[in-house]
Formats: sequence, structure tokens, C-alpha cells
Amino acid sequence: MPLTQRIETAVSDALQLSQAESAPAQLSSALVYATTPGGARIRPTILLSVAAACGDDRPELANAAAAALELIHCASLVHDDLPCFDDADIRRGKPSVHRAYSEPLAVLTGDSLIILAFEVLARAGGRDPGRAAQLVLSLAQRTGMPGGICAGQGWESEKTIDLGAYHRSKTAALFMAATEMGAISAGHAPEEWRDLGALIGEAFQVADDLRDALLDAESLGKPVGQDDLHGRPNAVAELGVKGAVDRLKQILSGAIASIPSCPGEAALARMVSHQAERIMPAVPARYRA
Amino acid sequence: MPLTQRIETAVSDALQLSQAESAPAQLSSALVYATTPGGARIRPTILLSVAAACGDDRPELANAAAAALELIHCASLVHDDLPCFDDADIRRGKPSVHRAYSEPLAVLTGDSLIILAFEVLARAGGRDPGRAAQLVLSLAQRTGMPGGICAGQGWESEKTIDLGAYHRSKTAALFMAATEMGAISAGHAPEEWRDLGALIGEAFQVADDLRDALLDAESLGKPVGQDDLHGRPNAVAELGVKGAVDRLKQILSGAIASIPSCPGEAALARMVSHQAERIMPAVPARYRA
Repeated sequence: MPLTQRIETAVSDALQLSQAESAPAQLSSALVYATTPGGARIRPTILLSVAAACGDDRPELANAAAAALELIHCASLVHDDLPCFDDADIRRGKPSVHRAYSEPLAVLTGDSLIILAFEVLARAGGRDPGRAAQLVLSLAQRTGMPGGICAGQGWESEKTIDLGAYHRSKTAALFMAATEMGAISAGHAPEEWRDLGALIGEAFQVADDLRDALLDAESLGKPVGQDDLHGRPNAVAELGVKGAVDRLKQILSGAIASIPSCPGEAALARMVSHQAERIMPAVPARYRA
Repeated sequence: MPLTQRIETAVSDALQLSQAESAPAQLSSALVYATTPGGARIRPTILLSVAAACGDDRPELANAAAAALELIHCASLVHDDLPCFDDADIRRGKPSVHRAYSEPLAVLTGDSLIILAFEVLARAGGRDPGRAAQLVLSLAQRTGMPGGICAGQGWESEKTIDLGAYHRSKTAALFMAATEMGAISAGHAPEEWRDLGALIGEAFQVADDLRDALLDAESLGKPVGQDDLHGRPNAVAELGVKGAVDRLKQILSGAIASIPSCPGEAALARMVSHQAERIMPAVPARYRA
């Protein structure tokens, strides 16, 4: 089964667990709305690719892990979009959950998706509860406090930000979960796979910074790299466009070099290169000098 | 060690996991603020009492389960207090989390406590990951959708409410988690313990209705049992004060009768009677006729 189909089936199976005739209809509907159709499903793609590289001897666990990770990512988008955070009206081309439903239902949608993620892992652990417990631990550490995406979002309430901790938790954490959980699903040690996730996360951060900067330059006519872009730390502000592009390439080479020795090492390196091409923004010629 | 001390130690150990120098300070502080000092810690008390009745052969698992359940309860209070739900200024005699910190930090505090609950269970599963996975499943089912406290809160966004499902999920769910998780921690089947939790939860609901109704009668001079009390379904509105008191006694007898045969059956029955005395509101003589 191709990865994208495995992921959509796993997410859909997970959502089924949250649905029942005896449940409140709007919240049930909001859970589906917040998770389908998905975005690029990049985190579960990485997770399943790592599981495949490690032999994927328990595909049912890998599928559950992929769904759980994607549910957490979707939950974080729903909560980040709330009026008290980004106050976003649109997400993935349609109204955000609090706009389409209500703010109470958006809070509950995020909560329910977080909980569902852990339920999915527990249910998949029937034949190997030891791996399931490891998956729960990895997902919780990369999602909560003190080092997960909650911590990342929490940094934005601080007067002074620890930039390293901020980026590691805000963006890299779920990519670290992706590589760790892929390895765990297939019975491999998560520690060896942490760096790959951290580096992919860092690459996404720099790619995002580049996209934001180039978009601002296009649409607002602001000079690129001259301001701190909404006050958040930024690779383009620090290094300029060309410097940021070079940094991105360097991080991706490091990511590929960090892949541990394993049966599917070569295929995984190709996947990372492929993802790298997808995230590298088109940089106009005038910034390449 | 007395139960209250076991619970406070378990909650404090759990919170330690969420704290680190590299974490955002305000969110770290809000997690402690939201969980200590606690309320009556009634859910973990029931959980540990059931574990004791079942032999408590893995006290480290029971402690983790007690902490996890209390963290979920605290998380639900933080989110329920948010402006978009109850907009509560005060909780347990001090400003609610969104008042003391901010609304973003209150959302993140709830999220982080939910996640921490599952992390605590995963970590405690080292020697018995099978029980840990069962604990994760029970807690998730009683917290999320379609039948947990998220569902209960979700019902309040519906135009027509399924009263049975509403009460079961809104109030009884975490009491069912308490009895199920107590049994699981000690290696017993959770199914046999579900009714006890459901009945204790129902008793709490009726006791709450009575307290609200008597309070309204005292403070607002409103006749008891004559209105639907903020539009929510209510035992006093349905049965009157005397009827509700009789119903409460009947439920508690049923709860004690439902206790499965186990080594600590008698002690557990005493605990339920003791809790029942605590929750029974003082009913003025004029309502007892």
C-alpha cells in the first residue's frame, strides 16, 4: 500500500473511534473537519519511512503511530488558530475550526484529538504493549512540557526567549517524534533517530523563514532580511536570503548523513532529499548573489 | 503511607516531569498553580481505594494512575473556566488560570496537563507495559470522544441534549475511570468495576444539583425545584428536594451493592459510605417533609 493511502486509512480508522451515535453531533463533526482533508501529512510520511527503513515488522503499530502523530499535529493547528493565539480565520483553505463551529468546540476538538492520539496507541499495543508504552512516552515528550510543542507555544508568552529551546520545541519536536516513533514501531532504539528528526525540523524552520521573507518582499514590498519579521527570531534576518538558502542545504546534508545504518538507509535518504526539494522555496535570481 | 500523602506525592512527582530549566517559566509555573494545592482529590482517592481492595500488587502503577487521573481532572477545570465556557474568575479560592496568567497560557496548561497524564502512565509501565496500555486506554476513553468528559462538555453546544449521555460523560466518566484504573493497576478486569464508578458519578451529580438548588434558594430567594436551574437538566427540578435526597441515598446503596467480590470489599464499602456522608448536603428541615 502506498504511504499516502496507509496514512489516510490510519487517520480515518482513528477518527472512527471518536464517533458514536450517542456522542454530541457537532463535536463529532468538528473532529473530522479538523483532520480531513489533510495537509501534506509530512510528519506521518517521515514516520512510516523510518519504520520502513527499520524493517516495519509491526505495520499495525506504525500505522497507529502515524495516525497519532498526525492527530496531535492537527490538534495543535486547531488550538494555535484560536482567537487568543493566532486568531486565524482560514486553515488549509477553509474556515478554521472556531470559525466554522465555535470557540468552545475548537477547544474541545483540540483536546479530543490529543486524547484520541493516545487512545490509538494504546489500542494498537495489544500484541506489543512494550512498544506501545514507548510510543506514548515519545509522543507525550514531544508534545507536552517541558520540551514539546506546548513548550514551544509557551515560549511566545515569555518576555525573553531561549531561541534554541524555542525552535527545538516549537517546530523540531514533532519531527523528532516522527523519527523516534517510526523507529520504536519497528523495534529499534529511538535515540539513534533523534538527530534526523531534529535536523529535518530545523530545515523546515529555515524553509518557513525563507518563504515568509520572500512572501513579505513580494506582497508588502518590504526589503528582505531587514527586519525581525513579526518580532520572531528568523534565519533570514540573521543570515540574509542567500545565507539562509546555504544553511538549509547544509542542514539537509547533515540530516541525510545522520541516518543510522539500517536495511532501508538508501531509500530513506532518497525520501529526505525528495522532501527537501518540496520545501525549498523558489528564490528569485536577485537574492541568489 | 496514608492515601492523601500517596496522592500528593504522586501528583508532585508527575509535575516534576514537566519542569526543566530549559522550559518557558510562566507555563511551568501555571502547571503547578493549576494542580496544587488540590481540591478534595476525590477521584484519585477512589482509584487508590479500589486498587487497595484489589490487592494493590503494583503500587507504583496505582500511584501513577492516581496522578494521571487527577491531572486530567485539573486540566478539565482549567479549560472549563476559560472565557468561552464558564468564564470563571475564581477556582479553589484563587484566581482561575486564565485570570492569574493569561488565556493562551490557560489553553496550554490544560493541553500540557492532559499530555502529562499519559506520559506518567507510560513511564510507570516499565515493569508491566500491558497494564500501562490498559490504563492509557481507560483514561482516554473516559476523557475524550465519544464518551468522555470532552463529549460531556460538547453536549452543551447541542440544541437538543441526550440527558443520559450528557450526565454519563460530563460527570460520571472520570469516576468510571477511577474505579476502572484502580482495578487495572492491580491486575483486575476493569469491566466489573465500571458500575461502581458510574453510580458514584451519578451520586455526585445529584448531590451537586441539590447543593446548587439549596444555594439558589438561600441566596436568591428562588423557590427550589421550580425552574430548570440555568437551563441544565437537574434532579431537583425533576424530583423536588426530598425526592432528590431519596434518589441520592438509593444510588449510594446501589454503589455499595455493586462492589465486586474482592479481598478489600468491606473497607471499600466503608470508604464509599464515608464519601457519601461528605457529599450529602445539609438539607434544611422545611425541605425534608
